[in-house]
Amino acid sequence: MNEETLRALLESITRGEQSVDDAVSKLKNLPFEDIGFAKVDHHRQLRCGFPEVVYCEGKTVEQVAAIFSRCAATEGNVLATRASQSVFDAVSATNPQATYHEAARVITLRKTDAKPSAGTIAVVSAGTSDIPVAEEARITAEIMDQRVTAIYDVGVAGIHRLLAHRAALTEANVIVVAAGMEGALPSVVAGLVDCPVIGVPTSVGYGASFGGLAALLAMLNSCGSGVTVVNIDNGFGAGYAAALINRRCRDRDP
Amino acid sequence: MNEETLRALLESITRGEQSVDDAVSKLKNLPFEDIGFAKVDHHRQLRCGFPEVVYCEGKTVEQVAAIFSRCAATEGNVLATRASQSVFDAVSATNPQATYHEAARVITLRKTDAKPSAGTIAVVSAGTSDIPVAEEARITAEIMDQRVTAIYDVGVAGIHRLLAHRAALTEANVIVVAAGMEGALPSVVAGLVDCPVIGVPTSVGYGASFGGLAALLAMLNSCGSGVTVVNIDNGFGAGYAAALINRRCRDRDP
Amino acid sequence: MNEETLRALLESITRGEQSVDDAVSKLKNLPFEDIGFAKVDHHRQLRCGFPEVVYCEGKTVEQVAAIFSRCAATEGNVLATRASQSVFDAVSATNPQATYHEAARVITLRKTDAKPSAGTIAVVSAGTSDIPVAEEARITAEIMDQRVTAIYDVGVAGIHRLLAHRAALTEANVIVVAAGMEGALPSVVAGLVDCPVIGVPTSVGYGASFGGLAALLAMLNSCGSGVTVVNIDNGFGAGYAAALINRRCRDRDP
Amino acid sequence: MNEETLRALLESITRGEQSVDDAVSKLKNLPFEDIGFAKVDHHRQLRCGFPEVVYCEGKTVEQVAAIFSRCAATEGNVLATRASQSVFDAVSATNPQATYHEAARVITLRKTDAKPSAGTIAVVSAGTSDIPVAEEARITAEIMDQRVTAIYDVGVAGIHRLLAHRAALTEANVIVVAAGMEGALPSVVAGLVDCPVIGVPTSVGYGASFGGLAALLAMLNSCGSGVTVVNIDNGFGAGYAAALINRRCRDRDP
Amino acid sequence: MNEETLRALLESITRGEQSVDDAVSKLKNLPFEDIGFAKVDHHRQLRCGFPEVVYCEGKTVEQVAAIFSRCAATEGNVLATRASQSVFDAVSATNPQATYHEAARVITLRKTDAKPSAGTIAVVSAGTSDIPVAEEARITAEIMDQRVTAIYDVGVAGIHRLLAHRAALTEANVIVVAAGMEGALPSVVAGLVDCPVIGVPTSVGYGASFGGLAALLAMLNSCGSGVTVVNIDNGFGAGYAAALINRRCRDRDP
Amino acid sequence: MNEETLRALLESITRGEQSVDDAVSKLKNLPFEDIGFAKVDHHRQLRCGFPEVVYCEGKTVEQVAAIFSRCAATEGNVLATRASQSVFDAVSATNPQATYHEAARVITLRKTDAKPSAGTIAVVSAGTSDIPVAEEARITAEIMDQRVTAIYDVGVAGIHRLLAHRAALTEANVIVVAAGMEGALPSVVAGLVDCPVIGVPTSVGYGASFGGLAALLAMLNSCGSGVTVVNIDNGFGAGYAAALINRRCRDRDP
Amino acid sequence: MNEETLRALLESITRGEQSVDDAVSKLKNLPFEDIGFAKVDHHRQLRCGFPEVVYCEGKTVEQVAAIFSRCAATEGNVLATRASQSVFDAVSATNPQATYHEAARVITLRKTDAKPSAGTIAVVSAGTSDIPVAEEARITAEIMDQRVTAIYDVGVAGIHRLLAHRAALTEANVIVVAAGMEGALPSVVAGLVDCPVIGVPTSVGYGASFGGLAALLAMLNSCGSGVTVVNIDNGFGAGYAAALINRRCRDRDP
Amino acid sequence: MNEETLRALLESITRGEQSVDDAVSKLKNLPFEDIGFAKVDHHRQLRCGFPEVVYCEGKTVEQVAAIFSRCAATEGNVLATRASQSVFDAVSATNPQATYHEAARVITLRKTDAKPSAGTIAVVSAGTSDIPVAEEARITAEIMDQRVTAIYDVGVAGIHRLLAHRAALTEANVIVVAAGMEGALPSVVAGLVDCPVIGVPTSVGYGASFGGLAALLAMLNSCGSGVTVVNIDNGFGAGYAAALINRRCRDRDP
Repeated sequence: MNEETLRALLESITRGEQSVDDAVSKLKNLPFEDIGFAKVDHHRQLRCGFPEVVYCEGKTVEQVAAIFSRCAATEGNVLATRASQSVFDAVSATNPQATYHEAARVITLRKTDAKPSAGTIAVVSAGTSDIPVAEEARITAEIMDQRVTAIYDVGVAGIHRLLAHRAALTEANVIVVAAGMEGALPSVVAGLVDCPVIGVPTSVGYGASFGGLAALLAMLNSCGSGVTVVNIDNGFGAGYAAALINRRCRDRDP
Repeated sequence: MNEETLRALLESITRGEQSVDDAVSKLKNLPFEDIGFAKVDHHRQLRCGFPEVVYCEGKTVEQVAAIFSRCAATEGNVLATRASQSVFDAVSATNPQATYHEAARVITLRKTDAKPSAGTIAVVSAGTSDIPVAEEARITAEIMDQRVTAIYDVGVAGIHRLLAHRAALTEANVIVVAAGMEGALPSVVAGLVDCPVIGVPTSVGYGASFGGLAALLAMLNSCGSGVTVVNIDNGFGAGYAAALINRRCRDRDP
Repeated sequence: MNEETLRALLESITRGEQSVDDAVSKLKNLPFEDIGFAKVDHHRQLRCGFPEVVYCEGKTVEQVAAIFSRCAATEGNVLATRASQSVFDAVSATNPQATYHEAARVITLRKTDAKPSAGTIAVVSAGTSDIPVAEEARITAEIMDQRVTAIYDVGVAGIHRLLAHRAALTEANVIVVAAGMEGALPSVVAGLVDCPVIGVPTSVGYGASFGGLAALLAMLNSCGSGVTVVNIDNGFGAGYAAALINRRCRDRDP
Repeated sequence: MNEETLRALLESITRGEQSVDDAVSKLKNLPFEDIGFAKVDHHRQLRCGFPEVVYCEGKTVEQVAAIFSRCAATEGNVLATRASQSVFDAVSATNPQATYHEAARVITLRKTDAKPSAGTIAVVSAGTSDIPVAEEARITAEIMDQRVTAIYDVGVAGIHRLLAHRAALTEANVIVVAAGMEGALPSVVAGLVDCPVIGVPTSVGYGASFGGLAALLAMLNSCGSGVTVVNIDNGFGAGYAAALINRRCRDRDP
Repeated sequence: MNEETLRALLESITRGEQSVDDAVSKLKNLPFEDIGFAKVDHHRQLRCGFPEVVYCEGKTVEQVAAIFSRCAATEGNVLATRASQSVFDAVSATNPQATYHEAARVITLRKTDAKPSAGTIAVVSAGTSDIPVAEEARITAEIMDQRVTAIYDVGVAGIHRLLAHRAALTEANVIVVAAGMEGALPSVVAGLVDCPVIGVPTSVGYGASFGGLAALLAMLNSCGSGVTVVNIDNGFGAGYAAALINRRCRDRDP
Repeated sequence: MNEETLRALLESITRGEQSVDDAVSKLKNLPFEDIGFAKVDHHRQLRCGFPEVVYCEGKTVEQVAAIFSRCAATEGNVLATRASQSVFDAVSATNPQATYHEAARVITLRKTDAKPSAGTIAVVSAGTSDIPVAEEARITAEIMDQRVTAIYDVGVAGIHRLLAHRAALTEANVIVVAAGMEGALPSVVAGLVDCPVIGVPTSVGYGASFGGLAALLAMLNSCGSGVTVVNIDNGFGAGYAAALINRRCRDRDP
Repeated sequence: MNEETLRALLESITRGEQSVDDAVSKLKNLPFEDIGFAKVDHHRQLRCGFPEVVYCEGKTVEQVAAIFSRCAATEGNVLATRASQSVFDAVSATNPQATYHEAARVITLRKTDAKPSAGTIAVVSAGTSDIPVAEEARITAEIMDQRVTAIYDVGVAGIHRLLAHRAALTEANVIVVAAGMEGALPSVVAGLVDCPVIGVPTSVGYGASFGGLAALLAMLNSCGSGVTVVNIDNGFGAGYAAALINRRCRDRDP
Repeated sequence: MNEETLRALLESITRGEQSVDDAVSKLKNLPFEDIGFAKVDHHRQLRCGFPEVVYCEGKTVEQVAAIFSRCAATEGNVLATRASQSVFDAVSATNPQATYHEAARVITLRKTDAKPSAGTIAVVSAGTSDIPVAEEARITAEIMDQRVTAIYDVGVAGIHRLLAHRAALTEANVIVVAAGMEGALPSVVAGLVDCPVIGVPTSVGYGASFGGLAALLAMLNSCGSGVTVVNIDNGFGAGYAAALINRRCRDRDP
C-alpha cells in the first residue's frame, strides 16, 4: 500500500463509495491467515515477489502439512525446504502433485506453467559433496521460473575443470557457487566474470572447517569483487536471491 | 580469450598472418603490468567490468601512489579504498583531479563522463554511526556510473522512519543496507520489497558486538528472503555487487 | 532473617524464653532438606517468592522423581523443566495430578488456586519453530499465577503481522519475545512499546546460527532500549523474570 | 496510532473536518525530524516513554552536538552516552546547563523537575573497577526520574560485604548488578531476593575474560532465577530497563 | 636417575662391577613396556607418585583391557577413567576384583590397603547434575589413599546451604569444587577459606553454556584468590591434583 | 602443458601436421572425465604427482563406488579416505583387490609394485587414541611408495619413551606427529631433530579440547622451528605432504 | 565466626556479659571498612590467610593510593598488582617503603619479617618473554613468606635445558610454570615430578596464539596429571595458590 | 649424543682415558649458556641444523642485544625476527655488520659465505600487502643458505597472473605461499604442482578476517593435497621449514 493507493482509498470514503469500517479493516492490517500456531503471510507474493516459503525444521509434521496446504490453496507455486521424507509423506497425502527432491531435501508443488526466464543463473559446486546444497539453490530458482545451468565438481584443486566451463559462466546473469572446505571457488569465479557471484559456504569438511565456518569466513573475505554470501548450507537463500536478480535482468544482445 | 578468439588466432597462424612467437606470447599470458611489488591487472575491466580497485591498507604510501598512477594511465575511472589522508596527499600530488571522501576514506578519480544508470540502487543506513560504511557503498556504485538514493538513520528502533521511505525502497533494483549492533534492518527491509538486499554489517557497537560479529551473524541468519551479505564494514563490496546487479537490470515500465 | 528478627531472637534468650542450643540451631542455618544427592531449598519461597524449580537435565529419573515429591509435599505449586516423557512417567506415578506440557517439556503441579494477576505478560514468538520455547515461558509465568497473552508467528519478515497485534503489546506490563535466526524481533517490539522486553534467543536456525548464538548476540546488541536477555532457549528464565516484574506492577488506570 | 484514533481520523474525513491531504500526511508517517545525517525520533517519548537517547560513539562531535540540541529543544530530559570530554565541550557550548559525568562518560540535561519514584532501584557493583558502568546505570535511571540506591564493591570474594546490605537489596523493586571477571554476583544476589535482577557484565578483567565475555556467559547461565542480562558494559541499557520496571511498580505496603 | 646414581653407576664400571653393555642399557632408557599399540609407563609411580592412569576414550575395548591388565600386574592400585559399561565388562573378565563406579564412569582396582591420609580433601558440587564429575574426583583421590569429604548440591542460588557446611570446608587442606552453568561456586568458596581451591567446570547447562565454556571462563576469572582450574568435566584431574597436594600437607595441630 | 609443448603444438599446426580443430580441443582443456556428479581429474598424476584421492564423506555410496572404479581404470594406485565399512563393501564388489584399513577408515588399491623409497618418513603418535589418525598418514605415504617407520604412544607425559626412539627420529627425512589433548609433542620432537615436522592435531580429548582446537592452536604456535600443521584429524594430508617431501630427498651418506 | 564462637557469644549474653546491641552488631556483619568507592575487607587475613590484594587495573590512581594506604594501616604485608609507574608514584608518596617491581608491574610493602618457608616453590618460565609473568608469581609468593626457586628460559624447544634443572624441580613442593605460544611446558614438567604443577598461560605469541588462548587451552588439556591452570598472564593467581599449598606442606625428611 | 657416542664415552672411562667427573659432566647436560634471563642454546645447530633464532617480541632491547651478541660469538649466521628499529639500533651498536630488513622487521648477520643451494624455494605472495610476511620467509631461507625465487602479487582474483609464473612454480622443490583475506592461493598453487606447499596466512584483511583467522582456516581446510600451514604472519616459520626441506632435496636431472 503506497501513497497513491492510500489517497485513492481515502477519497473513496469521502465519496461514500466504501464505509469507514471497510477502510479501517483495509488500513489496519495487511492480509495474513491465522491458523493458530502460524500466521500464513498470503500478502508476501505481492510484497516480495514470491509466496511465503515453508521452512520445515523445528515444526512438527502436522504443522508443516497444514501450512503447506494453506499455501497450496493460493495461486502460486509452493516450496518447502529442509523437509525430511516423513514430512513429505504427510504433505503428499493431501497434495499428491507435490514432488520430493531427496538430495536437496526440498518439496515443490508447481501450480503455474510460466515460461522460464531468458537469462540464466549458473549454479556451480566445488565438489561432489557440495551438490545437495547446490541442488537446493537450483530447485529454488527453477520453481521461481528461472532458467538454471548446473556446473558441478569444478573445485580449485583442478582449476582447468573450471576454466573449461568459462563460456557458461560468462553467459550467466548471476552465479551461485557452493563450496565447502576452504571455500575458495567464489573468489576464483568472481575473477573470471563481470556478474554478481553469490557464495554458499557448505558444511562439507571436518576438523577446523568447524561446520562450514572456514568456508564462510573465506567467502566473506573474498578478494574477488562482486561476491556476496549467504548462510552455511543455505542453498535456498542463494537460489532465491539469484532469482530476484535474474528476473530483473534485461535480455542481452544476441 | 574465449574459444572464438582462440580459433581466430590459430587460423591466423596457419595463414602466416602472425608468427608462432607472437602467438605464444599472446596465448601464454593475459595482460598485466609488473611493477615489482605489484602486478597491475589491466585486463580486469574487460574480464570483470571495472578496473582493478586499489585497496590501500597494508601498502606503503609510495606503493599506493605508484599503483594509483598506473591505473590512472588507463582509460577507466579509478577507485582506492581504505585510504588515509596521508595516502591521499601522496596520490593527489601526481593526480590532482583525484577526490578524497573523508568519512568513507575513499579516493576517486573520474575520467569518463558516462550517464548514470536509469535504475537506482538504494543505500540505507540504520544509524548515523553507520554512515561512513554506507557512503563507501554509495561512492563505489556512483564511480561505476550507477544512480544511488541514500536513506540514512532509519533503524528498527523507530520503524516508522523506515516505513516513511517505502516508496524509494520499492523503486530500487537492489538495496544496500548498512547496520551495526543487532543488524536487524536488512531482514525488515527484505520483508518489504521484491528486490535483492545486500546487508553490510558494521562494527558499530560494543561489548558483545565483537567488532560487528553480532550484526554479521544476524544478517547471515536473516529470515527475510533475498538477503546476501558482505564482510563487516565492507561498504565497497556491497556497492560493487549492487552496481553489477543494477547495470544488468532492464528499464522498468513507466 | 533480618535485623529485627535477629534482635527479637536474642532478646528471647536473655529472657530465658528459649535455650542457647535452639538459638544456635536457628542462627546457624536457614532451612533446607538434605536428601543425600540434593539439598531441597524449602526456604526459597520466602526468600525469592517461588519454590525451588526442578531442572531435570543431568539428573537421573529417580533423582527428579524424589526431588519433585519433596517439593510437592510443601504448599506451593511445583514446576519441573527440561523434562522428558520418561521423567514425567516417573513423576506422575507418585504425583498423579501433575501435568506434562509436551512441546515445552515442562511438568507442572498446581496446588493453589490463586487468582491470576490483573496485569498481563505478552509472550511473543517470531516463528512457529520458536513456539516450544515461548510455551515454556508462558507455562512458567502461569504457574506463578500471572496472566499471559500469547502472540505467535509474527516475525519481522512480515512486519504487518506484528503491527496487527500492537494493542495487545501496548497493554502488557512486560513482553517476552522468543526468536531464533537473526533474533531481530525484540528490537522491533521494544521500539513500539514503553514496557520492558525480555528477549529469549532460540536455537532455531542452522549454519552460522551456531545453535542460537546469532540470535543471542543480536538481542544483546539491540538498538531498542529496554531489552534484556536470557540464555538461549531459556523460556523458563524469561517467564520467571517476567512474572517477578508483572506481580509488582500496579493496576493501570481503566 | 491505534484502532480508535484511526477510526476517529477517518470519520473526521467523512465529516469534512479535515482534508484528505492532511489525513494522508498523518497516516503516512509518524513524526520524526530529518536533519540530513540523522532522523531524530521525537515520537519516541510517546511510544516508548522516554525521548531518544544519543549514543555518541561513531558520530562526529558536530553530529552529536546537533542531535543533542534538537533533543534539548523538545520538552523531556536529555541523555547522551559514551561521550568523551571533547563531545561534552561541544554540547555544553550550546547547552550550558548540561552536566558531564566523567566516570560514566554520560551527559545529562535535566529539563523537568519530576518527583523521584517512591520505589527504589538498587544498583550494585562487584568491585571498584566496575563503578563506571554502575554509574552509567544509576544516572540513566535517575534522569528518568527513578530513585536509586547505590551499593558498590560487594563482590563474592568477601560475601559478608554483600550480606551486610541485605536490607537495601530486599527493599528494591529491581536490582542492577554490574560485575566483571567471573560475573558471579547476580547469581548470588538473585538467590537472596524476590525481585528481578538485571546483570551487566563489565569488561573488567584480563586474559580469558575476553573483554567481558566470561562475565556475560556466566550471567546468561545464572542458576539464580529472575536474572536477565544486557550487553557488556551496557550500564545504560540496564538502567533504562530498570527504570521501565520500577515506574510500573505499585507502592508497597508500609 | 639423578646425579648421584649416575655417578655410582659410572664408578661401578670403572671398578669392573658391571659391563659397559649393562650400563648402556641402563643409561639409554627409563623403563616402560612396549605392547605394540601402547608403551605402558611402569616408571611413572617412581617419577610422579602414582601409576599411569588408563584413559579409555578413543581406545578399543581390547586395548583398554590389555593395558589395564598390564597395570594390574604391577604393585599399585589401578584407575581407568571414561570407561563405558562394555569396557568394564572386558576389564572385569580378567580382573574380577575391579569395581565399576557407574555415575563417574570409572574403574578402580585396589591392590594395597594403605591407611587413608589424616588430612582431608573436600569435594563440593554446585548441583545434583554435577555429582558425576565430583564423584570422579572423589574416587580418584580415594584410590590414591586420600581421605575425602563430599558436600553436594550447595550452589550459590541458595548460599545458606553452603554456609551451613563452613566447618567442613575450613578443615580441608584442599577443596575441589565442581560446578556448571555460571561456575560461580569456586569464587564464593575461595572467599571463605584459606586453602587452595581447584575448580572443575562441568558441562551442565545449555545454550550459551557452550558445553561448559561459560563455567570454565568464570573459574579462570575468579576474583577469589587461590583458585586454579582444570578442564571441563575433568573430575579426575582435579582429584589427582588435590591428592598430590593433600599428601604433602603436614598434620594440623589438634 | 608448458611453453615448450605449446610451441611444439603450434608449430605442428603451421606445418599442417594437425588441424586447427584438434589444436583448439587440446589447448582449451586439460583432460578430465565428466561422469555427471563428478569430474574425475585424470590429469592430476602428471600435474601433482599422484592420482586424485577419493574423499568419501558427503558422497553417496554409489557415487564413491563409481568414482573409485574410474580411478582404478587408470594406471596408478587408488586411495579413498573417510570410508565407512558400507562404502568399502560397495567398492570391493567391483574392485575385489581393494583393501580396507578399518582403524584408519581408508581403502587402498595397489596396482603398481614400485620399490619403496630409500629414505624414511617417521610417523609418531602421542597416545594410543591417536593411532587411527597416525595410521591414515602411514597408509597414505605407503600407497605413494614411501618407506615409513611408525612410533606410537610416546607422548610428553613420559618423555623418556620418546627419547628412547631418538635414533629413528634422527634418521627420518620428515616426521609426522599426531597428537591430541595439548598437542605438545611436535614441539618437543622438532627440538630434537633437523628435519621438517608435520603436526596433525587430533580430536582426542574432551571439554576445552573443543574437538581438537586446543591441539591445533598449540601446534600452530609451536616454539619448535620447522613445524608445519594440517587440519584436525587430517592424517591423509600429513602423509601426503610427507610423501611429497620424502620422494625429493637425496639419499643420505651411508 | 564458627559454631564455637557463636555459642560463646550467645552464652555471654545470657550471662549479661555483653548487651544485645553489641551482639547484634557482632553477629550482623563481619568487619570491613567502607571508604565510599571501596569496602576494604580487613577480615580477609583471618578468613583466607592473606590480606586483600589491590588489583589496580580499572581503578583511578587516587583510588589505588587510598586503598593501599588503608591496607598498609593494618598489620600484614601489602601487595598491589597490575600497577603502572604512575600508580606507584602515587602510592609511594604516602608509603615511601613500598617497592616497585617494574617487569612484574607489582608493588610490595613488607611490614613483617617472617622467616621464609622451609619448603620451596619452583617458578619456571618457558622463555625470556614469559619472565614478567613468572616474576609476578615469584614476588607474590615471596611477600607471602614462601621460599622460591626461579628457573627461567627452559622451554621445550631445547628440552635438555629443562632436564638440567631436574633436581630443583624434584625438590619443590609445588611448581609454577609460565609459558606462552603452545604452552607445552607444564605437561612436560608434570611428567617429571610428583608434586602439583600450576600452569600460567602467557599472552606471549602472535597470530593464532589469540592473546594466550592457545597456551591456555593446551594447559587445560594437559596429558600430564597434576596440572591445574590459572588465567592468562595471571602470575599473581599462580603465586598465591602455590603459596597456599606450600605453607601447608610438612617438612620433608632430610 | 646417540648410542654410539655413549658407548665410546663409557669405554673411554673404563680405559681411564677420562675421569668420571668429566663423564658426569658430559652425560648430564647438553651445552647451553646461562646468562641469567636466558639460556642460549648453542647446541641447537648440531641438533636442529641452524643456530637458535632470536624472537624479539616481549624481550627488552637490552635482552635482545645481549642474546644476539652471544649468538654472534658462535660460528653460524644469526637471525632475529620481529625486531623494531630501536632493537636494531641496539644490536648494531655492538654488531655493526648486522643488516636490518625493514619491511620484514628482521635482523640478519651473515658470518659464513656458503654457496646457495642448487634447488630453489619459491616464495609467493597473494597481494602487495602480504609482501612483508613473504619477505620474512625469503630472508629466513636465504640466511640458511637456500636459493629463493620471489613471485609477488599473484592472487586468485586475477588467476592469469599466477598462471604466467607456472614454470617457476614447477621448478621449485617447495613453495611458500603468503596470503591474507580468504587465503585461497595455496589451494590453487597446490593444484598446479607436485611439490609441498607451505601456506602462511597473513593478517591482511578486516572485519570477519579476524586478524588472519579466515585465511588460516581456509588453508587448513585446503582441498589441494600437499598443503601444510604455519601460524598467522609466521613468515619465519614457513621459510625455516622450507629451508629444512630444500636442503635435503637431491639435485634434479638437468
